Amino acid sequence: MDLMANTLLAAGASPAMLHTLQELQDFIPHIHALCINIGTLSPDWLPSMKSAALTAAQLGKPWVLDPVAVFASEFRLTACLELVGLRPTVVRGNASEIIALANASRGTGKGVDSIHESTDAVDAAKSLALASGAVVAVSGAVDIITDGQQVIGVHNGVAMMQKITATGCAVTALIAAFIAVDPSHPLEATASALSVFGVSGEMGMEFARGPASLRMHLIDALHGLDQAAILSRVKIASIE
Amino acid sequence: MDLMANTLLAAGASPAMLHTLQELQDFIPHIHALCINIGTLSPDWLPSMKSAALTAAQLGKPWVLDPVAVFASEFRLTACLELVGLRPTVVRGNASEIIALANASRGTGKGVDSIHESTDAVDAAKSLALASGAVVAVSGAVDIITDGQQVIGVHNGVAMMQKITATGCAVTALIAAFIAVDPSHPLEATASALSVFGVSGEMGMEFARGPASLRMHLIDALHGLDQAAILSRVKIASIE
Amino acid sequence: MDLMANTLLAAGASPAMLHTLQELQDFIPHIHALCINIGTLSPDWLPSMKSAALTAAQLGKPWVLDPVAVFASEFRLTACLELVGLRPTVVRGNASEIIALANASRGTGKGVDSIHESTDAVDAAKSLALASGAVVAVSGAVDIITDGQQVIGVHNGVAMMQKITATGCAVTALIAAFIAVDPSHPLEATASALSVFGVSGEMGMEFARGPASLRMHLIDALHGLDQAAILSRVKIASIE
Repeated sequence: MDLMANTLLAAGASPAMLHTLQELQDFIPHIHALCINIGTLSPDWLPSMKSAALTAAQLGKPWVLDPVAVFASEFRLTACLELVGLRPTVVRGNASEIIALANASRGTGKGVDSIHESTDAVDAAKSLALASGAVVAVSGAVDIITDGQQVIGVHNGVAMMQKITATGCAVTALIAAFIAVDPSHPLEATASALSVFGVSGEMGMEFARGPASLRMHLIDALHGLDQAAILSRVKIASIE
Repeated sequence: MDLMANTLLAAGASPAMLHTLQELQDFIPHIHALCINIGTLSPDWLPSMKSAALTAAQLGKPWVLDPVAVFASEFRLTACLELVGLRPTVVRGNASEIIALANASRGTGKGVDSIHESTDAVDAAKSLALASGAVVAVSGAVDIITDGQQVIGVHNGVAMMQKITATGCAVTALIAAFIAVDPSHPLEATASALSVFGVSGEMGMEFARGPASLRMHLIDALHGLDQAAILSRVKIASIE
Repeated sequence: MDLMANTLLAAGASPAMLHTLQELQDFIPHIHALCINIGTLSPDWLPSMKSAALTAAQLGKPWVLDPVAVFASEFRLTACLELVGLRPTVVRGNASEIIALANASRGTGKGVDSIHESTDAVDAAKSLALASGAVVAVSGAVDIITDGQQVIGVHNGVAMMQKITATGCAVTALIAAFIAVDPSHPLEATASALSVFGVSGEMGMEFARGPASLRMHLIDALHGLDQAAILSRVKIASIE
């Protein structure tokens, strides 16, 4: 939550972190986008997550799902399938997460054992996008974003970002901020968020000695980004 | 909690973070001051917060309340009003939080809808101080501290501190550390804590490139503060 | 959790943080070592901790216990005694924690009041190791590691590491990573982890201006450690 909140503040957004069922009805009307992250999922939090997603959907607010380690337990997989059924605007995960979720959504999987590591991430992302109606993003050396038809690749970022905990969670939160600004173009907003976060990592890497200083310089770079830096560095390309 | 604990350690205090009802009776007798922060409030935690506040009050220990986003839900507002009723030594928030709480304490408010943004923060702080018996601090470009009679302004800090998550929470924790040392002068202790935190931000800003490096340099500066730096930089003035 | 996860990632390990009972049976079979930390202990989490420890033990996975502030309440002490009864591979704490736990394990203590500060940490560590069957590590200016027979001292680290929250938790997590690699030599693995963490602190201190920059440089140094740096700096010596 710390890195997510600092990422959003650095990008000019206004984050708030809640997990209590009782206050969601009061709070959701005031948000521009919702981010649901199952990182430290507990049975207590799941009803709040579902209620938040439902309320956001009813109010026409975009929302983003981060299916952290969905392959790790039946509990996570079941929770994610329920959340995917509530029609997220975007789902972002790494290849293992998206493949596990795509297989389970197709009904071919049975939780942890069902992960076919050989499944192509692009195919899994397209399948999940078509089954769920969501834009699906797969983080990796090249980030993949698809709505089931178009497939976009983002070629920004540096490998050391994977040595910082919660960078995946942070970029999912940034996607939520971007779709808050442009809710009618979730494919483009998602690709832009992934690219901008990757560009920040590239610029931060110029000053970093290791993962902890990269984390700091990445957030500083995100805060200081200007149009020139973005235009000269963004690498977004159509794949299919 | 991370930034709060590191702020307290940097200032020479000894923080401990607990939220379990069962252990409060054992633990509270050993503390010098208590900080209650409703940031990620849950129904589970509220009984612990109330019990901790009650026990601290019974034992004559000073305690500080941070009514994070009290305006965001009826749940938060009700919880804060109950906590304010347990006689905190200090309440610290931003202008929106203090105005919402002051209106609700006066009985003129009905939760979120009752926030009159035009209400002056100084008036709200004085009103809440008189209604609650607490010293009330309002963070802002100029921090305002009042016991309902005297009003003090602190003119330290830099704007970028608002781009770091939990700086408000951290300064509330620092206030708790200061009133632990000087419990009989909560007005002066609160103003001093706000000023010292602001001075640390000013000194950190000299080395910062953005909000993440400011966060680091602020804590380093707080740890390295000496009397000369404080005397030359502190800007505390009487307002009324 | 943030510093623990970043420490593990910097060291090349793959951390996952869970606290939900329902998913432990699915997840534990995939881990190489388990770390249980009672820092923000709640009644909800205790059954998960016990179940995780039991399952790890049944599957022959090594596990490490960090009895954070075990002396602070009967609730913590009782919880830790139950966890110690589930046969951790390693227990790591500071002197106050290990002395409190050793006294309670001997049945001479009655919780908070029973802490005899004068008890020697080496004696307490040996006693707890013999009573529990665990390797016991005591962090301090000199770290002490014992299996009840051998006693090893680690003379690495810098004093300012104690001004950073969760450094104790982070080194316990690093011990878990080291025993994951060498589960048949927990005494040596524990001493090595403590030494490597201390060496990282020494190297980080060369660039630090205070506790916050030390935290950053320590993680960077851990990530960049090579054999030469380790061999030239490690100070591990037999005490008894």
